[in-house]
Amino acid sequence: MNVTEEYMRIDIGNSIDTVASPGISSDTLDSLDDQVAAIHSVIGPKINNNSFGYAALNILSPEELKNLCDFTESFSDFSNVLTIGIGGSALGSATLSTALGLSGHYVLDNVDPSANLTLLNNLDFTDTVINIVSLSGSTIETISNFLVVRNLMNEQNIDWTSQTFVTTSNKGPLYDLSDKYNLPLLPFSEFIPGRFSALSSVSLAPIAILGGSVEEILKGARSGLDSLSESIYSSPAYAYGAITTELFNLGIISNSLMPYSERLETFTEWFAQLWSESLGKEGIGQIPLRAMGATDQHSQLQLYRAGKRNLMVTFIDVVNHQTELTIPASEFGDFDYLSNLDLDTLLRTELQATEASLADVGCPSIRIEIDQVDSFCLGELLHGCMASCIISAELQGINGFDQPAVEWGKQALKDILTGKSSSESSSIQNKNSYWIGK
Amino acid sequence: MNVTEEYMRIDIGNSIDTVASPGISSDTLDSLDDQVAAIHSVIGPKINNNSFGYAALNILSPEELKNLCDFTESFSDFSNVLTIGIGGSALGSATLSTALGLSGHYVLDNVDPSANLTLLNNLDFTDTVINIVSLSGSTIETISNFLVVRNLMNEQNIDWTSQTFVTTSNKGPLYDLSDKYNLPLLPFSEFIPGRFSALSSVSLAPIAILGGSVEEILKGARSGLDSLSESIYSSPAYAYGAITTELFNLGIISNSLMPYSERLETFTEWFAQLWSESLGKEGIGQIPLRAMGATDQHSQLQLYRAGKRNLMVTFIDVVNHQTELTIPASEFGDFDYLSNLDLDTLLRTELQATEASLADVGCPSIRIEIDQVDSFCLGELLHGCMASCIISAELQGINGFDQPAVEWGKQALKDILTGKSSSESSSIQNKNSYWIGK
Repeated sequence: MNVTEEYMRIDIGNSIDTVASPGISSDTLDSLDDQVAAIHSVIGPKINNNSFGYAALNILSPEELKNLCDFTESFSDFSNVLTIGIGGSALGSATLSTALGLSGHYVLDNVDPSANLTLLNNLDFTDTVINIVSLSGSTIETISNFLVVRNLMNEQNIDWTSQTFVTTSNKGPLYDLSDKYNLPLLPFSEFIPGRFSALSSVSLAPIAILGGSVEEILKGARSGLDSLSESIYSSPAYAYGAITTELFNLGIISNSLMPYSERLETFTEWFAQLWSESLGKEGIGQIPLRAMGATDQHSQLQLYRAGKRNLMVTFIDVVNHQTELTIPASEFGDFDYLSNLDLDTLLRTELQATEASLADVGCPSIRIEIDQVDSFCLGELLHGCMASCIISAELQGINGFDQPAVEWGKQALKDILTGKSSSESSSIQNKNSYWIGK
Repeated sequence: MNVTEEYMRIDIGNSIDTVASPGISSDTLDSLDDQVAAIHSVIGPKINNNSFGYAALNILSPEELKNLCDFTESFSDFSNVLTIGIGGSALGSATLSTALGLSGHYVLDNVDPSANLTLLNNLDFTDTVINIVSLSGSTIETISNFLVVRNLMNEQNIDWTSQTFVTTSNKGPLYDLSDKYNLPLLPFSEFIPGRFSALSSVSLAPIAILGGSVEEILKGARSGLDSLSESIYSSPAYAYGAITTELFNLGIISNSLMPYSERLETFTEWFAQLWSESLGKEGIGQIPLRAMGATDQHSQLQLYRAGKRNLMVTFIDVVNHQTELTIPASEFGDFDYLSNLDLDTLLRTELQATEASLADVGCPSIRIEIDQVDSFCLGELLHGCMASCIISAELQGINGFDQPAVEWGKQALKDILTGKSSSESSSIQNKNSYWIGK
């Protein structure tokens, strides 16, 4: 289990047109390199200036980090954090806590009564910090879940105000709540959209409370920022964004993110949101798929290899799994080769075999390689994915930082619940049903 | 929370061409109806005769059920079952136990050393039945995990042979193992491919051991079988399979399964395998996506509504969530409409709003409605999905029961591990790498 490399790197060999079809030609790489250089010269300053959206790629200053640590310090005696948020308000911290194996982080990100009650009935509220997260402060699911939680704490005679903090912007219902009850307020920067907030205080606060090393995460993020350059030939993040975009233009309408590490399962959800909400607009958008190696070799590989050639796979290879688990020798004559094999060697070899299996039929793939699933590498990985996403939006000339298409449904929901007559609510009421089996 | 219906039903209104674009015309529905009638007259007898593959839609006989119950009876004092399997050998039982909320079911379906060790270190082996599942009896990941588990049990001086059973065919390494150690053997029917085994003894055994009602699951499956008829106008399962197939032919290359119930999360994985391995071949195959309502409205909806019109959504609406959780009244003036609202009403209204939001832009969707997530409805739902998948394969003239494209990677893995020189292993060794950042 030697770790020989330091920074995140990617292998694009299986996306080149000598292997993949469709694939990227060397002329196209040069052209992408030129385009990225031009874009970088524009967005580099925007990152430094904390311009809207681009601010996500900037790194918390030492002063901001100190403020965050001072803020979370007062909660550090609690064993649990219950994050109440949805979408980008929950996935960043959930991704980090899951990957780092931090216990005690619970997330209410749905309004499923059965799942929520099961979680809440098993939670020791006396030992739990409540972390309410919403940029607007008016997200229906988050407000609803907060009211349910507060009621339960009141019923248990727990002073909820003494162990609750609010992450929101400087106005709105949650801001008013913090004002009324004197709750600590963590500012949700209006310059960072929710799905880009994984490396901001929004997501780092629960991690700090649970004892994670925010400093190491930020060191990794800094390394990611430093790796952004004017050339895709030296910048893994920009190269990933540019190549997936070009493959999309060539008909690769779907991208399956397939880490070979169970700790990165929530990370695939975070990536799926990042990709879908940032790039899915104006009639375009590569569809993100979530897979898990090696398990999904026995589930999705058949389709990937033999289906339409409209899909790429992004493998994540973890060099060091930080756990030694060895297959003992056995009486199975046919399996002598498994004797004394480490599971991590087996897992990484499975990745190589699957990668080769796709290359064999010209299905494009990219391998992202990281040393291990630790704070530094995660900071770098998350930063790299956001930079990839931003360069992809720029190359396609779309706004990567808005999500206008979700508003219609929100309006429809609100109008139905308030009994307001509108074109949205009447669409629901006048639904064109055609039942079979009813 | 009134339950007014009994059987699974689907609403295809939002896939009809008066709403969706692309959408299904009434002429096309009639044509599909004719094709399904012809197919049903052929496969109906195959189901009854337990022909290869089609046998999955047949229901265990009373005698087979009795044999299963007799088999599992001897393990019923154990609190836990550890299922060691991968793909279809694990997903059926995992889907059922998760959806039914049965505690004590653990699954080793990957060779991730970190995740596996965490699971195994927290498991009380003295109270755990080991359930090794592999049709061929030679699945590398399953053999590897079994050897690791056996070693741990030996180290803890637990007689593993007294609490282990094997689910496999009537030959192969696991069959030999059961013979050597006199382990109880549950036959894995060679007529039922792994991904179609959710309603067979393979998946039902752990459920029975943990106290689930296998009889109710089979009653639901029987109801699903009875609903298969020569007309799509009266058969929800056939209608779902026929319409998704036709939409695929019209360019809807992806299908997002979006239940509004957290208990159905593993079910989406099961469905994804069923769809991918059965239909992804010969250059075709609709790509299954996994989503979760309402959470993914804040993650995937932007893409679904505003991206390429190449995607459909399958909503699963659960009428009765079997849990009452009410949002209390609050001081938030803007949210009066949430006061005393039940979470399940909120959740179901979110589904309706999202469905309308997609219909508004012509994105096709289908709603599957079930009464509740219980044994009966699950049996019917899983049966319906398998019947849908089979009718889809028939309509497209492909073999829904094989998965030839996974063999290449398996061979490559084995050849690399055994050091055998082959075209597969040399593809790995001679990989055309192109590193960025290394």
